[in-house]
Amino acid sequence: MWNQNILTEKIGIRYPIIQAGMAGGITTPELVAAVSNAGGLGTLGAGYLKPEQTRESIQKIKQLTDNPFAVNLFTPETPEVNDTEIAQANEWLLPFREELHISEAPEVKEVQTAIFEQQIQIIIEERVPVCSFTFGIPSKAVLQQLKENHIIVMGTATTVTEAKANEYSGMDMVVMQGSEAGGHRGTFLSSFEDAMIGTMALIPQAADQVNIPLIAAGGISDGRGVLASFILGAQGAQMGTAFLSCFESGANTQHKQAVLNIEEDQLAITSAFSGKPARGIRNDFIKKMKKHEKHLPPYPIQNTLTKQIRSEAGKQNRTEWMSLWCGQNPRSCKSQSVNELITSIVSQIENMQK
Amino acid sequence: MWNQNILTEKIGIRYPIIQAGMAGGITTPELVAAVSNAGGLGTLGAGYLKPEQTRESIQKIKQLTDNPFAVNLFTPETPEVNDTEIAQANEWLLPFREELHISEAPEVKEVQTAIFEQQIQIIIEERVPVCSFTFGIPSKAVLQQLKENHIIVMGTATTVTEAKANEYSGMDMVVMQGSEAGGHRGTFLSSFEDAMIGTMALIPQAADQVNIPLIAAGGISDGRGVLASFILGAQGAQMGTAFLSCFESGANTQHKQAVLNIEEDQLAITSAFSGKPARGIRNDFIKKMKKHEKHLPPYPIQNTLTKQIRSEAGKQNRTEWMSLWCGQNPRSCKSQSVNELITSIVSQIENMQK
Repeated sequence: MWNQNILTEKIGIRYPIIQAGMAGGITTPELVAAVSNAGGLGTLGAGYLKPEQTRESIQKIKQLTDNPFAVNLFTPETPEVNDTEIAQANEWLLPFREELHISEAPEVKEVQTAIFEQQIQIIIEERVPVCSFTFGIPSKAVLQQLKENHIIVMGTATTVTEAKANEYSGMDMVVMQGSEAGGHRGTFLSSFEDAMIGTMALIPQAADQVNIPLIAAGGISDGRGVLASFILGAQGAQMGTAFLSCFESGANTQHKQAVLNIEEDQLAITSAFSGKPARGIRNDFIKKMKKHEKHLPPYPIQNTLTKQIRSEAGKQNRTEWMSLWCGQNPRSCKSQSVNELITSIVSQIENMQK
Repeated sequence: MWNQNILTEKIGIRYPIIQAGMAGGITTPELVAAVSNAGGLGTLGAGYLKPEQTRESIQKIKQLTDNPFAVNLFTPETPEVNDTEIAQANEWLLPFREELHISEAPEVKEVQTAIFEQQIQIIIEERVPVCSFTFGIPSKAVLQQLKENHIIVMGTATTVTEAKANEYSGMDMVVMQGSEAGGHRGTFLSSFEDAMIGTMALIPQAADQVNIPLIAAGGISDGRGVLASFILGAQGAQMGTAFLSCFESGANTQHKQAVLNIEEDQLAITSAFSGKPARGIRNDFIKKMKKHEKHLPPYPIQNTLTKQIRSEAGKQNRTEWMSLWCGQNPRSCKSQSVNELITSIVSQIENMQK
């Protein structure tokens, strides 16, 4: 099964196991390199990184591994800035700021597109083997430039229609993100509710409709999920939460502990942290902001507004106000090294195939 | 894989493939018997049947097959009747009644518990091999009586906690209903939102926590889903929509056609038809009633109020007001005989295992 796999052959990795490009400090160079060194594909979640941070992280990863790795970018979104909406959101966020002793609300600047373009140039200059995208498909020009530089491009889809759009755009492969996934929904063509398709249903339907390799994501935390993904029609599997809880991940200790102690029915999808629906552990922030959710500024504006709250909450050990992203299979996640996780997946699958 | 399966051995069937007990005229004796004759376990969805109809259907099934089959019952719920709430719901339903020329609103009677107890007696008298339950766990007395009469009892769970509750109650096996499933959610301990766990995540977590055999349900429409279920830790797989679209099912032609032509992102979860969340094809009724959903009478009261609307809409070929239940994997469903469906699943699995 590891041989004659289109994904491992194309990327040049041993196992078709991908570590999701979780943004926000989780995917440290140490985590990315550990995954790639263990035979999988590590991914730097560069969505929130500045250009210079992106370059430094990539260079650090290259010092730590000679194996292929990926960088994940957020396809830019530039919603109109509505000052009234922002003022209202800041009013709702004030109680959290006060509790955390944050003196003022951040300024909202629009620079996302410029950062993205600089990141693309860095990825090309640094000869990053794989560039993956979330939140939509970038321009034809961007994809073409990457492909001309022999960089493998990988998209994200949450419906069959989005998978087809990725294929049509020229993506080499596409991550099919099932509704179980932790963190942000990658939906870009439907409403988020309509695109909450479970992995079990999403993979076979996409496999019958698109020809590029599919990577299953959502609810996969061990060898059972990885093997089931292949059976359903994927050529690879991507895991987020299972890597988040590993020793090498940069997720803070409270986040790791929360994931290791939570049950699958204590999560929620919320837009309160970023303006875009994402799955995490249901805490006080999510509960208190729920009634305002429909009136918050869109992503990435709300994300900017809550940035200090999230980081201060982390520093002050206040898990009730942190964004504790988590997928629906936390019970199968363990406190272990990346190498133990990948080795156990491989041996689990080899045992099941006997 | 078909041998040494605890489910097939215990029930005495050839394949651990279960046809879901869809209520509302879909599970005709012909469908149930066809599934059991093909080596699976057919299920009469008796949730909405009167005692005499339940007996007649069981006797008809026994004429059509000598193989084991199941009867599915709804564990009774007796919410308080609130006349103001009912009057309000009837006002919202009036436009649909007028369009369909339904002259008056139905009377709401509370008889569910009495019917359920009579159905239990019929199941015992008719020596039905398997009795399955949805919407919660019946009383200890009921389960004990069935077990004393050598009837296998099967529960439904949508979270690991609900699976444990089923095991503790003495259920012989439990259907784990993932969020992909069509029709009503079986959730009985959590809020329905918290219990929307995808099959990919639900099965392995339940497999690690309970010891009774698990049956995976939700998003499974062909051999890929059935085999993936086993890999994830289930001992059997249950399918609804895939059987609904078969020749032998009693679903009306418009419903079957709608399922065969829909895409996975055109469905919705609605409480508008019955007062209990259920997944179906998003149509005019669901869209128009959405704003009232939180203020409708609970199940089964709302179900009684919409009964004529659903049945008249069916007779008048108005799919926009019918309850077109459908799971998230409609693209893998085909217009075929039950025997073709089961044979293709078996050969698909045997091919994948080579």
